[in-house]
Parts: sequence; C-alpha cells; structure tokens
Amino acid sequence: MAYDTATNTTQNALAPTLAGSFHFPTRVRFGRGSRAALPEVLAARRCLVLTSRGGRRRVEADPALGRALGEHDTVWLDRIEANPTIASLDELVAELRTDRWHDETIVAIGGGSVIDAAKAIAAGVAAGGAGLCAIARSPAVLDERELMPIVALPTTAGSGSEATPMAVVWHRTPGGGPGGGDGPAKVTLAHPRLYPAHAIVDAELTDTLSPHQTLATGLDAFNQAAESLWNRNANALTLPLAMRALALAWRALPELQRDPGDRVARDAMAEASLLAGAALAQTRTVVCHALSYPLTDRYGVTHGIACAFTMAPVVQLMLAGDDGRLGALAAVLLGPGVGAGALPDAFAAFLARLDVGEQVREAVGSLEALLALVPEVELPERGGSGLIDIDVRARTRIFEAAWGDGSGA
Amino acid sequence: MAYDTATNTTQNALAPTLAGSFHFPTRVRFGRGSRAALPEVLAARRCLVLTSRGGRRRVEADPALGRALGEHDTVWLDRIEANPTIASLDELVAELRTDRWHDETIVAIGGGSVIDAAKAIAAGVAAGGAGLCAIARSPAVLDERELMPIVALPTTAGSGSEATPMAVVWHRTPGGGPGGGDGPAKVTLAHPRLYPAHAIVDAELTDTLSPHQTLATGLDAFNQAAESLWNRNANALTLPLAMRALALAWRALPELQRDPGDRVARDAMAEASLLAGAALAQTRTVVCHALSYPLTDRYGVTHGIACAFTMAPVVQLMLAGDDGRLGALAAVLLGPGVGAGALPDAFAAFLARLDVGEQVREAVGSLEALLALVPEVELPERGGSGLIDIDVRARTRIFEAAWGDGSGA
Repeated sequence: MAYDTATNTTQNALAPTLAGSFHFPTRVRFGRGSRAALPEVLAARRCLVLTSRGGRRRVEADPALGRALGEHDTVWLDRIEANPTIASLDELVAELRTDRWHDETIVAIGGGSVIDAAKAIAAGVAAGGAGLCAIARSPAVLDERELMPIVALPTTAGSGSEATPMAVVWHRTPGGGPGGGDGPAKVTLAHPRLYPAHAIVDAELTDTLSPHQTLATGLDAFNQAAESLWNRNANALTLPLAMRALALAWRALPELQRDPGDRVARDAMAEASLLAGAALAQTRTVVCHALSYPLTDRYGVTHGIACAFTMAPVVQLMLAGDDGRLGALAAVLLGPGVGAGALPDAFAAFLARLDVGEQVREAVGSLEALLALVPEVELPERGGSGLIDIDVRARTRIFEAAWGDGSGA
Repeated sequence: MAYDTATNTTQNALAPTLAGSFHFPTRVRFGRGSRAALPEVLAARRCLVLTSRGGRRRVEADPALGRALGEHDTVWLDRIEANPTIASLDELVAELRTDRWHDETIVAIGGGSVIDAAKAIAAGVAAGGAGLCAIARSPAVLDERELMPIVALPTTAGSGSEATPMAVVWHRTPGGGPGGGDGPAKVTLAHPRLYPAHAIVDAELTDTLSPHQTLATGLDAFNQAAESLWNRNANALTLPLAMRALALAWRALPELQRDPGDRVARDAMAEASLLAGAALAQTRTVVCHALSYPLTDRYGVTHGIACAFTMAPVVQLMLAGDDGRLGALAAVLLGPGVGAGALPDAFAAFLARLDVGEQVREAVGSLEALLALVPEVELPERGGSGLIDIDVRARTRIFEAAWGDGSGA
C-alpha cells in the first residue's frame, strides 16, 4: 500500500486508497476577523466564558469579542490554569452543578488548556458528578448525555483542540519535580461528544503572541501533524490534511521567529493548527507525545517543545515503515526529487535552528536524568500505532539521539 | 488573494489563507470491504431500507449486506426511481407517517437518487406532512426537528450525496420532452440536518457498474469537484479536497473505460466522489450544474454527462478570474510547469475521448434546440458564485462552444 500524493502528477500510476474512517462534526469558521461571527453563533443563549486570568483582560479589551460578550448574559470562569488539574476541574464542575448549569453554551477563549478545560467541564457536568477520572476510565457514560455545546476560539496556533474530541488533564501540576507523585500524571478524556460544536479560528487573536509562545504552541501543531502522518491509523482523508499542516508550519514557524508581525504566516499557522487537529482527531498521537509527557510532568518543559524534541530520531525510525507518504512529505517540504532519507537531518536542522534541543537540555540538566524518564513513558508494550513499533530500547535510543541533537536513532 | 498549493514546494512564498467555513458531520467509513461494518453501525435499531427495484436484488445477493439486513428488523422501500418526483416522495412520506415511522434508521443503498430520496423522506416525515415543496421553500421548518438518521451506502461513484446536506427532487419525470410542464422542474432541498449520519463508502459495491454507468456517475463527481474549485465560496479546507478529487478522477475515469475491472481505479473513484461531495457541500455548485438541468429535464440526458458537457468552455471563462488555483490544478493534472491556459483544451480532449459531446448532440438533435434551453437555466441574473459571473450571453456562448466540442467560449 502506498500513499499517493501521486495524484499530484500525471507521471505516477494511481496508488491504492488508504481505507479508514473520518468524523469531524465541528462547525468551523476561519479567517482573519471571523470572530465577528460570535454573536450569530451564540444567538440568545446564556453562556459560560472560560479564559485564563490574563485572557479575560485581553478578551474584554478586544473590540469584537468585548462587545459581543458584553451584550450577552454571561458568567466568567477566568481562572483556568495551564495544564489544568483534575482536582481543580472537578471542583468547578461541582460548583456549576450546584448553580444548575447544564444546557448553556460554553465559550472557550484561549489556548489548548482552556479549550480542554471546557471539554472536561462539559463532560463533568453532563456525567452528573461522576468525576473526571471515572469519566476517563468509562467514557461510555457520555454516550446518551447531552453536553453543553462548546464554542472554541483558539488564541494560540496551537493545540488544534478546537478540532478534536480529546482533552488532556493532569493529576498534579506539571513541573512539580521528580518523584512528585505516583500513577500516571496525565489523563486523556476522549469521546465524540467532546468535539466543540463551533470553532472560530481567527488568527488575529494570535497576532500578539510572543516569539516563545508562538514557537512552543506552533511546534505542538507541527508535531501533531507529523504524528498523524506517520500513524498506522492515517488514511486517505487525514493524510492530505496532515501534509498541508506540515507544509504550512514548515515555512511559517521560522518566518514568525524572524518577523512576529507577518500576518500571512500567522494565518498559515492558524490553518496548520486547525488541520493538524482535524487529522489528529482521527488517528490519535503516537510516540513523540508519549515521550513528551514525563518531560512536561517532571521538568515543566512546555508541551510543544517537549513533543518536538524527539522528532528527528523518530522520523529516522519511521523511514523503515514508509509506504510512500514520507517520500511525499520530503518532496513537499524539501522540494521535488528529494527523498525521504533527507527528512531526519532536515528535521534536526529545523529544530536546532529553533533552539528546541537547547531548551530541553537546560530544563532537564543531564542525559542521565532524561533516560531515567523512559520507564514513565506510557506507550503500549509493542510501541503504539506508528509505522514502526517503538519498543523500550528504541525509546532510549530516541532520547539519546535527541539529546545530542543528532538525527540517528 | 491566491490559492497556495504553494505549500507543496519550498520555492513559493506563503500565500494568504482563503477564509471560509466548513461543516461535515457525517461519520465516514471508507475502503474496500467497509460495508462489513453495517451491523455495528445499525446496532439493534429497526430500519427502513431504500433501494431501486434492481438494487434490492443486488443487495440481498451480496453476502455482507444480505446477511446484515436479513438478521435485522427491516422494512424495504424498493421502488425508488432515478430522479425521484416530489409527488411519489410525498406519497411515500404519507404512508410512513400513517405507519408511525419516525425514529428509525434509514439505510439508503444506491446511487444519488436513492440517497437523495432518503433525505427527502427523512425531511418529509420530520416536517409533519408539510410536503417537499413547502420544505424546500422554508427549510427552517427542520431547524428544531429530529430527523431519522440516514446510513448511506453509495453504489455509484458518484453523486457524493453521502457527504452532502442536499437532495435534488423533481416536479416531473425528467425527459418528458419539451414543453412538459411549467415552473422549475427541479427542486433542491438543503439543510444541515440532511447530512447522512453515516456514510459507508465501499468501492466493491461499484465493481459491477457498466462502463456507461461508471462514466455517467464518475463525470458527476469530476464535475462537482471542478464546480467547487472554481467557486467563490471555496476556501482553504475545500480546495485540497476538490483538487484531490479532480486528480483521482482524471486518471481513474479513462482507466475504467479501458479496464472496468481495475480495482485501484474503482477505489480512486469512490474516494474522488466522497471528497467532491464533502467539498461541494460547503461551496455548492455553480454554472455547469445550472446549465445541465434543462438538458436532463427536457431531453433525459444523464446528469453526469449533462454536467460535464460544458466544462471546457466554462473553465475557459473562469481563467479570467483565476487567483492561482486553476494554475495549481493544471500543474496537478497536466504536470509541473503547465499553466492554467492549457486547461480548456485538456478538458475538451478529455471529454471528447469519453464521448460526452457526442451523447448530448445525439439526445438534443440540434444546436437550435440546445440554445432554446438558455431561458430555462436557473442562475441568478449576475451568474452564480463562480470566479467569473456567467451572464445570459455567456450561457449561449458556452452552449455553442460545448456543442462544437471546442474550448473557446
């Protein structure tokens, strides 16, 4: 079976279709200025507005959003933290249930943590106080429930959470230090009802991100698109989305480090993030995400940086399972005629230029400390759904290679 | 603003994102053999099975579908005709309401007519006997209704109806001859609730189509992808879908005329049809569809042939409004370095090789008879949502050029 970008030229024969499934019910509006549609989307419904502390100030100061929400019957939850904990979310859910919230709209304006928190809250309220741990263990409890619809306005580009039915929440605050707890630190809620009802993807909301925020969130999108691409669950509908997201981020991310005011690049990253989310929603993540969580949990490495850290050695391993899609990616990123074998070095150079390895080395301190995280990586024994299985020895080799900024694993 | 396939090479600068909206809630399963999932999709629900007369025989003889439906509580409606009339559908709805059908599942197994009939029936039952003409005029009547969910299994590739919220129904039987009625012959129902809940796209169901059926339905998919591409409503999410559908059909359709047993080409057409439907669902059709309806209504020209008939002169006109997307299409279909200006002749040659003009000339008889249809074309005065407005004079020039099989309009 081979992936056919193929259909891009008349020179290649038709390649077999990659079978699979696809479900993406979110109503998307995207483009610069599209947040002006918020009043129309909300209609007359009462709504719960979720933001971070700083986020509320920015939303109220924004002409379009400030006016739209100012004229609305709203309650603000403006204390959503980065990497929200289960305890804090369960507490919010308990308060909302007491206040009889259940069929209103949640407006989530923020990064992935705020949108994920909205999903967790909607699930918690609908599940009648079951608690997020219980819902994560038995998501079927949501099968017959009506959840509060979510309107997601991402202010980063980004997590792609506006286009997925997943939410990551935490048992403890990441970065609490080594030995900070027992059991898995991170819990993923996943259920088709967690897709936001509406996503309004307006890159104008990302124009003021700092270069560091732009990079950290943008690398999350870039990595998610790659994880969806080198995934055994990828199919004919997800691969074009992932490929386009990678191509957009490949050029827009370095450009935004050079010129944070480049609006065309901001728009490209917003689109890349949305497409990566929609692709990832079908395939789920693979190895880079699994390897990243201990880095974030133990050393507070920002999610996007932690995910991108291992990409060069991971793509090196995936080459052995390539069915043509990595070759197509090389041609898209590096130019016609360039083969898949060039990807590991190209990824390593791309990430080195963005100081990814440097940031991880600084946070973790030593290769020994990094390798000590291998047992905490939550991947199935055989190694997940990548083109190649990533067993425990491979995980060590990936960390070693990433530490040295090299591409060989 | 320019469309950026762009992202396909490192040589081009980032082009602005085309803003827009996207909504495609249907749960899709696709791939050869995917119809084996039907029992899982239906679970224990009672269902209404829609087919054509011949379709029921083929479904019952099919091992996977025959067994799945045989073990189920089903009622068959096996008299769905090609281009179903409003009168016949309103009659079916009245019978179903008497029998108290309302929350069962409709399984539609057939071509576009069968799937469109399923949508019309679901709408008619939900609207409480309002009648399809009234629903078409005021689709908002469906806003708060729960429609019977539809599971669509297309047996052609195709209408793409499995991926759209639209249904075309007719006031009278097409091909009844000139002067056969007054008022518009064709009515389009459109409402977000008309998206099938599930689409199971299994190309194995198309393996036995005759070369003529393959061509007629395949040209519908090819044309729909093109109409979505040269559409002012196209955006960054629809263009990659339309582009890929065009590329797949461009190679698979001639191949299937040469070798109807080519399964890779069958799979490619099933994918093309699905993607074209999903793209078209967002943008709607433009000029070729509008020009086609009188041909089908008055002279019984098969829908796909009638739509494809005018594509060469239409693309010639659209060139004047190209923002880069037609150039990208030329590169995809004709090879790197080939410009958009080559598309009209390439389309004309492609369609001539498939005998499209010949079939229309035979059915209509004379250019005069063809031009007499111009006043019946239902397009807004200014000419629809194409890259270029198609006024009344342009419609005449398009018919003239298509009649001569030339590409100049």
